[in-house]
Amino acid sequence: MAQPWEGIVSADEIAAYEAAGFGRPQGMGKRPALLIIDVQYRTVGTKREPFWDAIKEFKTACGEPGWRAVDHIAPLLALFRELNLPVIYPYVSPKESFDVGRLAEKVPALMKVAANGYQFVPEVAPREQDILLPKKHPSAFFGTPLVSYLVDLGVDSLVVTGCTTSGCVRGSVVDGFAYNFRCTVPIECVYDRSATSHAVNLFDMAAKYADVKPVAEVMAELRALGAK
Amino acid sequence: MAQPWEGIVSADEIAAYEAAGFGRPQGMGKRPALLIIDVQYRTVGTKREPFWDAIKEFKTACGEPGWRAVDHIAPLLALFRELNLPVIYPYVSPKESFDVGRLAEKVPALMKVAANGYQFVPEVAPREQDILLPKKHPSAFFGTPLVSYLVDLGVDSLVVTGCTTSGCVRGSVVDGFAYNFRCTVPIECVYDRSATSHAVNLFDMAAKYADVKPVAEVMAELRALGAK
Amino acid sequence: MAQPWEGIVSADEIAAYEAAGFGRPQGMGKRPALLIIDVQYRTVGTKREPFWDAIKEFKTACGEPGWRAVDHIAPLLALFRELNLPVIYPYVSPKESFDVGRLAEKVPALMKVAANGYQFVPEVAPREQDILLPKKHPSAFFGTPLVSYLVDLGVDSLVVTGCTTSGCVRGSVVDGFAYNFRCTVPIECVYDRSATSHAVNLFDMAAKYADVKPVAEVMAELRALGAK
Amino acid sequence: MAQPWEGIVSADEIAAYEAAGFGRPQGMGKRPALLIIDVQYRTVGTKREPFWDAIKEFKTACGEPGWRAVDHIAPLLALFRELNLPVIYPYVSPKESFDVGRLAEKVPALMKVAANGYQFVPEVAPREQDILLPKKHPSAFFGTPLVSYLVDLGVDSLVVTGCTTSGCVRGSVVDGFAYNFRCTVPIECVYDRSATSHAVNLFDMAAKYADVKPVAEVMAELRALGAK
Repeated sequence: MAQPWEGIVSADEIAAYEAAGFGRPQGMGKRPALLIIDVQYRTVGTKREPFWDAIKEFKTACGEPGWRAVDHIAPLLALFRELNLPVIYPYVSPKESFDVGRLAEKVPALMKVAANGYQFVPEVAPREQDILLPKKHPSAFFGTPLVSYLVDLGVDSLVVTGCTTSGCVRGSVVDGFAYNFRCTVPIECVYDRSATSHAVNLFDMAAKYADVKPVAEVMAELRALGAK
Repeated sequence: MAQPWEGIVSADEIAAYEAAGFGRPQGMGKRPALLIIDVQYRTVGTKREPFWDAIKEFKTACGEPGWRAVDHIAPLLALFRELNLPVIYPYVSPKESFDVGRLAEKVPALMKVAANGYQFVPEVAPREQDILLPKKHPSAFFGTPLVSYLVDLGVDSLVVTGCTTSGCVRGSVVDGFAYNFRCTVPIECVYDRSATSHAVNLFDMAAKYADVKPVAEVMAELRALGAK
Repeated sequence: MAQPWEGIVSADEIAAYEAAGFGRPQGMGKRPALLIIDVQYRTVGTKREPFWDAIKEFKTACGEPGWRAVDHIAPLLALFRELNLPVIYPYVSPKESFDVGRLAEKVPALMKVAANGYQFVPEVAPREQDILLPKKHPSAFFGTPLVSYLVDLGVDSLVVTGCTTSGCVRGSVVDGFAYNFRCTVPIECVYDRSATSHAVNLFDMAAKYADVKPVAEVMAELRALGAK
Repeated sequence: MAQPWEGIVSADEIAAYEAAGFGRPQGMGKRPALLIIDVQYRTVGTKREPFWDAIKEFKTACGEPGWRAVDHIAPLLALFRELNLPVIYPYVSPKESFDVGRLAEKVPALMKVAANGYQFVPEVAPREQDILLPKKHPSAFFGTPLVSYLVDLGVDSLVVTGCTTSGCVRGSVVDGFAYNFRCTVPIECVYDRSATSHAVNLFDMAAKYADVKPVAEVMAELRALGAK
């Protein structure tokens, strides 16, 4: 199957990474947790619309690519629940008066999202016992007790979904990798507002930090785990 | 001046980010520190050669683009020294028997670099009083006391140079941003083994985490600071 | 003035620390922030009562010593507000179904506090613009974005108040010290359920991590700062 | 058996903690690692001497109580090696020109230790494959990649030894607890320059963060684990 970055990253560059020895697979661990990052109305919109319509509702919305990802996260989430594996929701909570700093300067639109934008998308919303993890910064690990939850749950690997590929997903994968959790990114389950940035961030993560593969393969690996 | 990502990230995508409100400038702070990340022989080679020759010496070498960046880091470093501003060298130290984990699995070549590969490139090497910061993971902040040094020095902003744009530079900028340090990336002073990944990571950082600008502009800002 | 640990830590031990060179003063920085840690009904009780009565209301209450500390925090807080210096409230939020782990095992009573126990004590409650910092672990720094707030505010020092001296205060001071913030503990403004532990933790902090001094001296230093 | 804090912490205070519900046991996990913190000549002296003689060699030395702890750490270490469980050495490396900040101000003597003071005490020194963890701050977790090693090793619990009870041991236990590792402190294997501070810090840790028990019990638990 063609990789999502083919045609964007050149064959020469792919060969260079190959020659330098990047991109070896890690494999799934024995006890993965699912991260569903920022899948809230503010990142997809309250209804299925193309990007340019979606941002009229929320400037932060990715529109249609987000909804396609939701379609793929839903059965993956169902499988995690079936296998009784942990599900964690890193998310952005409504901004408060003291939430200023670099983020507010760099992307002021993030500070003015309507209240309903913070609702979880119902198709993949949390249930009782799922871990809710409010965060103020891109990575799900930064300034949060995420590692403490993972240690307590005996988790050794992460399946990372949600948005954006080039933002919070990438940041969380880089940190998860540094903490030595095995990270897997199911391609169809992450989304971004830029197709190029989406593809190149998948390339970067596949080369250096994570196994990046079709969600069907990820689900097959999970089922194999569950069968043990 | 053309941005380095033009022609790679489409005009449509750039317009989408613009419409979503990304990429506002932050400005330099009042007391910046210079980070020179991983500018060691292992990332450029011991002599100026194109990528495909350089990787024969060290699999981790970026070759010619690395040396061009060194040419630009040298005068920037001289300016930091002239202004008596802090200079910090996050770097990779030789691997030890217990250095295993995800990094060793993902990029095994990183574990077998010859000893001279760990030497700092002489043109931009540390001096007495500079801060040396050995690190095991991509971000200069991860598993290091970098924040403690920055707090003690009263630093409020970072000028981030070195390599790779899509690896340790990106990781350090994302963390620096999350810690609320104002981050600036001087375009000519960072390097990568993939031109596409280099450009798109500059785009991502400019949109979300940092001011990304020509080194001449950065040096003018620093001189203006020093004149106060 | 007698130190609070005299008579508990022996003169010999104090001499040993002296001989080893511990306990040098650091001085207040130029821009301190006030931390008011866990001053909620659950740590003092809803009314002024001795310890053995207070724990009938909340097992986590310290009773009378807590209320005496509140009396001393109130004017200190007023001075921070007058000087327009940052005020931060690290606090424990109501436990959720997924809040399990070592804390729940070690001190199960912490998991069953009535809802009104989480209210801030009105005499020293937060106002608009103060920073609210929910936390899951003892140190105000652990798993929270506290450092990001401090960097953004240009803070270089912390005045640490609240409870308990041997728990969250001690943990926050050790971390603040490690991050290189100058830490000051105003003796009358921290409280504990054990007088011995309170005194010895003040001794430890004075020897190794913080300036520990009467609140009147701390307020005089703050006024001197404000006068500049 | 009498607890080490009896006679220092009053019966009333112990009853108060009991009533408040503190100090429940956690139990050892399934895969513990041994931390041997700062057991270097600088903390015990090069020969077995009482405190007041030992500090003539190194101001940072604890003398005789340190050597007694070494006697107890040695068989515990042998057991970890026999059971093929991980052994980690957080330690202080020689100070460099840029090592300034709060530590240097608070305890200047720490900055002027002779070179041989940094040697590991031979009776419990590291071997090939053990993890060496240089640190700049009290807690073994602060500014180090310790968590990454523990995640990679699948460790769920820590047995914490070395010195000082009231300094780096306490700091590491508080952080280990917050990360949800099960922490055990074998009483005879930790040491301090103050007997009171040693005892009260054991009390604090037993009440809030760790299982504190005789080393013989800890070794029996480890053998039971190994027998499974």
